[in-house]
Amino acid sequence: MIETDIEQLKGIANQLRIHSITSTTTAGSGHPTSCCSSAEVMAALFFGQMRYDAKNPKYHNNDRFVLSKGHCAPILYAAWAEAGLFPVDELQKLRTLGSDLEGHPTPRLSFADVATGSLGQGLSVGVGMALAARVDKLSYNTYVLLGDGEIAEGAVWEAASLAGINKLNNLIAIVDVNRLGQSQATAFGHNIDVYRERFEAFGWRVEDVDGHDLEEIVEVLSGVGLNDQPLCILAKTFKGAGVSFLQDKDNWHGKPLSKEESIRAIAELQPSSRSAAGVPIPTPDILPAPNTAAPSTFPAINYKPGDAIATREAYGAALVRVGEADSRVVAMDGDTKNSTYAEKFFKKFPDRFTECFIAEQNLVGVATGFGARGKVPFASTFATFFSRAYDQIRVAGISQSNLKLVGSHVGVSIGEDGPSQMALEDLAMMRAVAGAVVLYPSDAVSTEKLVEQMAVNRGIHFLRTSRPKTPVIYSNDEQFPIGGAKIVKQAAGDKLTIVAAGVTLHEALKAAVTLGRDGVGVTIIDAYSIKPLGKDVIKAAAAKTGNLVLTVEDHYPEGGLGDAVAGELSGDGIRVHKLAVNGLPRSGKADELLAKYGIDAAAIVAKVRALI
Amino acid sequence: MIETDIEQLKGIANQLRIHSITSTTTAGSGHPTSCCSSAEVMAALFFGQMRYDAKNPKYHNNDRFVLSKGHCAPILYAAWAEAGLFPVDELQKLRTLGSDLEGHPTPRLSFADVATGSLGQGLSVGVGMALAARVDKLSYNTYVLLGDGEIAEGAVWEAASLAGINKLNNLIAIVDVNRLGQSQATAFGHNIDVYRERFEAFGWRVEDVDGHDLEEIVEVLSGVGLNDQPLCILAKTFKGAGVSFLQDKDNWHGKPLSKEESIRAIAELQPSSRSAAGVPIPTPDILPAPNTAAPSTFPAINYKPGDAIATREAYGAALVRVGEADSRVVAMDGDTKNSTYAEKFFKKFPDRFTECFIAEQNLVGVATGFGARGKVPFASTFATFFSRAYDQIRVAGISQSNLKLVGSHVGVSIGEDGPSQMALEDLAMMRAVAGAVVLYPSDAVSTEKLVEQMAVNRGIHFLRTSRPKTPVIYSNDEQFPIGGAKIVKQAAGDKLTIVAAGVTLHEALKAAVTLGRDGVGVTIIDAYSIKPLGKDVIKAAAAKTGNLVLTVEDHYPEGGLGDAVAGELSGDGIRVHKLAVNGLPRSGKADELLAKYGIDAAAIVAKVRALI
Repeated sequence: MIETDIEQLKGIANQLRIHSITSTTTAGSGHPTSCCSSAEVMAALFFGQMRYDAKNPKYHNNDRFVLSKGHCAPILYAAWAEAGLFPVDELQKLRTLGSDLEGHPTPRLSFADVATGSLGQGLSVGVGMALAARVDKLSYNTYVLLGDGEIAEGAVWEAASLAGINKLNNLIAIVDVNRLGQSQATAFGHNIDVYRERFEAFGWRVEDVDGHDLEEIVEVLSGVGLNDQPLCILAKTFKGAGVSFLQDKDNWHGKPLSKEESIRAIAELQPSSRSAAGVPIPTPDILPAPNTAAPSTFPAINYKPGDAIATREAYGAALVRVGEADSRVVAMDGDTKNSTYAEKFFKKFPDRFTECFIAEQNLVGVATGFGARGKVPFASTFATFFSRAYDQIRVAGISQSNLKLVGSHVGVSIGEDGPSQMALEDLAMMRAVAGAVVLYPSDAVSTEKLVEQMAVNRGIHFLRTSRPKTPVIYSNDEQFPIGGAKIVKQAAGDKLTIVAAGVTLHEALKAAVTLGRDGVGVTIIDAYSIKPLGKDVIKAAAAKTGNLVLTVEDHYPEGGLGDAVAGELSGDGIRVHKLAVNGLPRSGKADELLAKYGIDAAAIVAKVRALI
Repeated sequence: MIETDIEQLKGIANQLRIHSITSTTTAGSGHPTSCCSSAEVMAALFFGQMRYDAKNPKYHNNDRFVLSKGHCAPILYAAWAEAGLFPVDELQKLRTLGSDLEGHPTPRLSFADVATGSLGQGLSVGVGMALAARVDKLSYNTYVLLGDGEIAEGAVWEAASLAGINKLNNLIAIVDVNRLGQSQATAFGHNIDVYRERFEAFGWRVEDVDGHDLEEIVEVLSGVGLNDQPLCILAKTFKGAGVSFLQDKDNWHGKPLSKEESIRAIAELQPSSRSAAGVPIPTPDILPAPNTAAPSTFPAINYKPGDAIATREAYGAALVRVGEADSRVVAMDGDTKNSTYAEKFFKKFPDRFTECFIAEQNLVGVATGFGARGKVPFASTFATFFSRAYDQIRVAGISQSNLKLVGSHVGVSIGEDGPSQMALEDLAMMRAVAGAVVLYPSDAVSTEKLVEQMAVNRGIHFLRTSRPKTPVIYSNDEQFPIGGAKIVKQAAGDKLTIVAAGVTLHEALKAAVTLGRDGVGVTIIDAYSIKPLGKDVIKAAAAKTGNLVLTVEDHYPEGGLGDAVAGELSGDGIRVHKLAVNGLPRSGKADELLAKYGIDAAAIVAKVRALI
């Protein structure tokens, strides 16, 4: 650390306060008092502690900063402006449609690795980044600023536990304990000992400071990297600190000052404020940049038509194969790796695998953190348990993260374990994520080809894998472009087009045999790409069957394949009928359940007969 | 507690083991070794500690038992069979389609208050039940059995924190620390001190015991209710305990024994096993039963057409009004009560309100617990933050819980706070929940009427409220039956039917004025009931406009109103076109965002002109 001028930092802290107040007053909304409580911490971090290239926020060995308390965006923006990344005048565009300085940070900004604003998510991302630094042998530290209110979120403790287990001494959490939440005081107020005991119990080294005393802050920051534990700094602060009529006052959460109030506030702050222009910022170590390029090819696959292989098992094989060719690929799982088959990758590349235990929010957050560092993270668990992390996935959508989610054990076809283990709403959930790609293979070959594309293409991709073994139906050189669909069976005179995926594709093929005996021909389409949907293929096929379509899915009727097809094609006059799991399922054998809930071959036959 | 015969309990524990082993062997799947680790704890709880009427599991002052580690269902079933609720022979029907003894417990069974099996959810439910006991002035205790693997879930720590804050000394968590997870050992193995420090830091009294030593277990259970803290009992156990070739062995998670192995296991256990038949079970205190009846009427409302009131604000008023008439109504919020307007209820009925702080998983779990005790819980937060609790909501769907969720701040119409605070996937998420009702009012009157029905009707109901003020458009005596839809505007010669809800209904009304000037008539339908959808109303209206429909929603295009309408009506030949938020939104003024993302009046006018 460059020798620190404490008086200078005090002045910068007030400058950051002034920017936070004026920009929110100009915007007419925002959280100036939440910014004021963290002003000294922000000044100390950005102007002396953190090692980074302020002109190049993406530099691979820059220290990382995650603003978990995302509503303090104005002070983050102020810090980067003062560091010279962009003119301070820009700050007055806060929250306007034309500016990337939004109400909460998003990666539209070069310095925001992830979107924040849904509280309690930043520490998981920080854990992923800190783990990525190890994989890449880089020396950057990861700093995460949290609010005291948000550490009521369980996701924070999932992250804290994994950081402790992995002894991440390159990870620093600073908690801005300003005592006041949105609607009332927090449960523990300024009882710092409660927080100390919690973080210590979760394996952290804990320091507490007066969060407005820069000497104390600088002192504890000088201990970053000591011993082998992650470091938590508990900063006792006051909301609205620095302004007499705001400090520690109720009912100031999320409210801008009026013009007149802001003038009074600035009058208090300005005499001791100073610009950070010219303040030297420590530079990062020069270390080799990790590979960030995708491979041009992958090793070939070699399946035989008719072989019975569950798509979850093919996923495990694919991940190893893709991981061999692509050093960016890392994987993680939530203590289900023997069921999702991520275990195959773990055994082959233990250093590129993170066991996240039974903590799916953190699983997704850690993966997001890896993705933000140029890795290609594949996170797996039972598909239905991703519902645990839906908020993290949603926010990864806002971040447009490079995140690969693989969910196994979908639908009633898992059988005896019963409904708590069945993913029946995952397609609805994942389709609604901004920009997400949703894939649902039916055999081993298509699984392998889709995993290749997941690795190469940027963005959120969800792969839905099944528990039962299904026969290989494609040849090894078949291609499965994302956004496509595959015509598996089609003949002149077909009466209806069936659109299916996963286990129901195989049920549809069986149904076609029965129907064929009666002279009823049906076209069958494998909708392996649920989003984007292979709309043109389906539309063209439907046109040849009188615009009559039947969708069949091992999912609830809402928001899945049927709604996707109807939602995209109904406007074109295509009549879409749906078969989906028609009740709250229970335990039983897979075949019994496919029959009972109306999605097996017999149900398809009956429905087709009723429709034609 | 009735004087305890330790030898008898030891025998019962082995009897429970035998049932767990034989039933899973017969089923050919299940988790016998996870049952064996908890056999002594289960024997002590069910045959001496817990006060309950074994013939009437729903009796209002019975002690409650929540099996958070739901995969140990076989031993739970065995305990109730041994307690005399049903014949032990029934246990051999485990996991078969004809039996309610499913792979994981569900409330199809009279003794299961909630479904478990998605780990880490039981403690939150237990907190809700323990809080309900206080509200109802009942003396029952709530026991929650957790696995050590599942306490990696953050939701457990959300629940633990709130239990500590509320000093719930009627809540007892027993952790079966058997050291082995599904795919590998847990992070902390038998390091009991780690767990002790964590629970203590979260405000609990902690005892640790040898989980196979009944004297120790009975001793610590005798201390239930001492002091004012919740009690955590850390039971050091071995997975597969009691059977030499299973105990503490890897690779036995979730695997039944073969027939031959089960014979060997029983040979070890049987000599010291004994039936619980005739063992006296302590009886609960006789205390008055709480009211569980819905009121027949509610106080009238009095709005004036044209008044500008946000539906979120009308929700607050409705909750107070309904709560006055219905003593079953309780409420809870996640530190957003001043934004959701739940604060109105909190101020009026502080004893019936639980502040859950920023911890949405626990918020939903606590509400589910209240619902399982005959209360009508209204849980509120920003709609998008319910995504944090999607797994809890999903499992409440399996439980068919009586749970009312109210989500505010939906869509781009919240404006400047930006995408992290906008619910844009909540309709997709909630529609896919089994049996859930999804409601989306457009004005204060419809909000009030829908809240009344939410209180009276059983089951999961989600109410989507909006941030902006909207004019009252209905008279005070208008009715809004769930599953209905309201024709707001219709005339002979209309060219197209617009289906909208919330803010977009008002945009549609504005669009109709513009279109009317050009002589283009449109029918406008308020789809206040998204699920079940007012399908017949829409279909009949569409028939009069050439089967041409346009949906408009402040939600992403996937899984929301448009997909609902298309998915339900496309098969009837109705052509459904959609307007929905057509990109990843950003901060800006509400009006600017409605325009930019294509769902304002101008966008509707343009789309209608293109379609007709």
